[in-house]
Amino acid sequence: MNSDYLHWQSIPTRWKDNDVYGHVNNAVHYSLMDTAINEWMITVAGFDPLEGGQIALCVESHCVYKAEVSFPDVIELGLRVGKLGRSSVRWEAGLYRRSDGGLIAEGYFVHVFVGRGDRRPSEIVDPIRAEMQKLVIA
Amino acid sequence: MNSDYLHWQSIPTRWKDNDVYGHVNNAVHYSLMDTAINEWMITVAGFDPLEGGQIALCVESHCVYKAEVSFPDVIELGLRVGKLGRSSVRWEAGLYRRSDGGLIAEGYFVHVFVGRGDRRPSEIVDPIRAEMQKLVIA
Amino acid sequence: MNSDYLHWQSIPTRWKDNDVYGHVNNAVHYSLMDTAINEWMITVAGFDPLEGGQIALCVESHCVYKAEVSFPDVIELGLRVGKLGRSSVRWEAGLYRRSDGGLIAEGYFVHVFVGRGDRRPSEIVDPIRAEMQKLVIA
Amino acid sequence: MNSDYLHWQSIPTRWKDNDVYGHVNNAVHYSLMDTAINEWMITVAGFDPLEGGQIALCVESHCVYKAEVSFPDVIELGLRVGKLGRSSVRWEAGLYRRSDGGLIAEGYFVHVFVGRGDRRPSEIVDPIRAEMQKLVIA
Repeated sequence: MNSDYLHWQSIPTRWKDNDVYGHVNNAVHYSLMDTAINEWMITVAGFDPLEGGQIALCVESHCVYKAEVSFPDVIELGLRVGKLGRSSVRWEAGLYRRSDGGLIAEGYFVHVFVGRGDRRPSEIVDPIRAEMQKLVIA
Repeated sequence: MNSDYLHWQSIPTRWKDNDVYGHVNNAVHYSLMDTAINEWMITVAGFDPLEGGQIALCVESHCVYKAEVSFPDVIELGLRVGKLGRSSVRWEAGLYRRSDGGLIAEGYFVHVFVGRGDRRPSEIVDPIRAEMQKLVIA
Repeated sequence: MNSDYLHWQSIPTRWKDNDVYGHVNNAVHYSLMDTAINEWMITVAGFDPLEGGQIALCVESHCVYKAEVSFPDVIELGLRVGKLGRSSVRWEAGLYRRSDGGLIAEGYFVHVFVGRGDRRPSEIVDPIRAEMQKLVIA
Repeated sequence: MNSDYLHWQSIPTRWKDNDVYGHVNNAVHYSLMDTAINEWMITVAGFDPLEGGQIALCVESHCVYKAEVSFPDVIELGLRVGKLGRSSVRWEAGLYRRSDGGLIAEGYFVHVFVGRGDRRPSEIVDPIRAEMQKLVIA
């Protein structure tokens, strides 16, 4: 697995992730990126999606699919920050099969931080920004 | 957590499991039961959902919700077999929060085994039946 | 289709509803009941899940599966109120295939109305109660 | 709504599409593109995902989010073919709110057709190709 990712999370697949082709459906990959990013933000960076003053909205996402993965395999998801702007952050992710280490997919996901009430972009605040800085690739 | 369950599986919640009320949506609990049951059948009992001669169809399910759970908590799901019939099995499950051990929900899930092609009930074969026998409560 | 249901909603299936067996997964049926019930509550009865003082939590659900349905079929979902209590309501639903009118599943779904903040049961208020009364079966 | 799309499909939102922010979650948009594309392929172009010799795998997808949409709104999804290759097709989609016609998102979705068994790229066959040709933008 790629050493360029700076945070890793294991996400077990679920029965319903598989579609009629017997593999994890393409839309699920985005849910897993969303899960890893938000879990990191909540547990590491102190983000509070339910009560905090800012929320993070996805404004763009992209994924390239390299290989299939099927339930009940586990996905090892690597994360890094490709670009950290004033109010936005570009997450980059790699998804790998635990069973054999094979690369499944690579994607990115752009979050814009906005005020919970006005939904207007606002500067990413500390400690979230400071933590994100640690995931920026050199 | 209840000692009456004979198999346990940890299932991390996902961002999208939470609905507008900020807790895991009621339909997700069924997906998690389905996941734990099929994962056990595949990895422990040798069930092959993609190529095997038999598939397992859900003919009835039920859940009572006792408390909320929210992403990013982890769900500890306990399983047992309430009744093992000729072609059917009644699974019983308890879902608990890892964070504090609290009971989230109790449910059951009835599988009927059918031929993949004709979709008619057929006797649950070994080694699946022999393994299920180990999960039958006294 | 059964004439005992007093409100009908058409819900198209989606690609991802189908699981590896090529039919709509059992957990989806609960999402569809949830959808029909909430859509009726919002558009007919004036329920506001995002800002209203009360929210409706599912405390019990059940489904019996009678036949398969597959994407891209459409599901005709019939609703009625089986029991209207002080703070709770028992919804009963029938799901039918549009393609041939066949019965797919029958289920029930119990909502308890609670305060948004304290999450304690509170009396279902008008106009929601008055509208629910119209769906009570004789 | 944009007149450059050559096929339109209405997709009602579901209760569970909304996430904790009270709007349709970003991963759902991909499921809806997948739904509209496959429904068109099955009902218009004669594609058979369960038994046909070819299946269509997503190898790349992308979405730019322009505005929010919330249950119970309906999404009007416009489709066109941006590029039709030998074994691949690039779908382009626009998602609009029915309630006010507002643009929600624009995305693309690349399918590669492969043999069901060997999963190797193979030429898109008629009548699927002939029908796709009708959706190619000038």
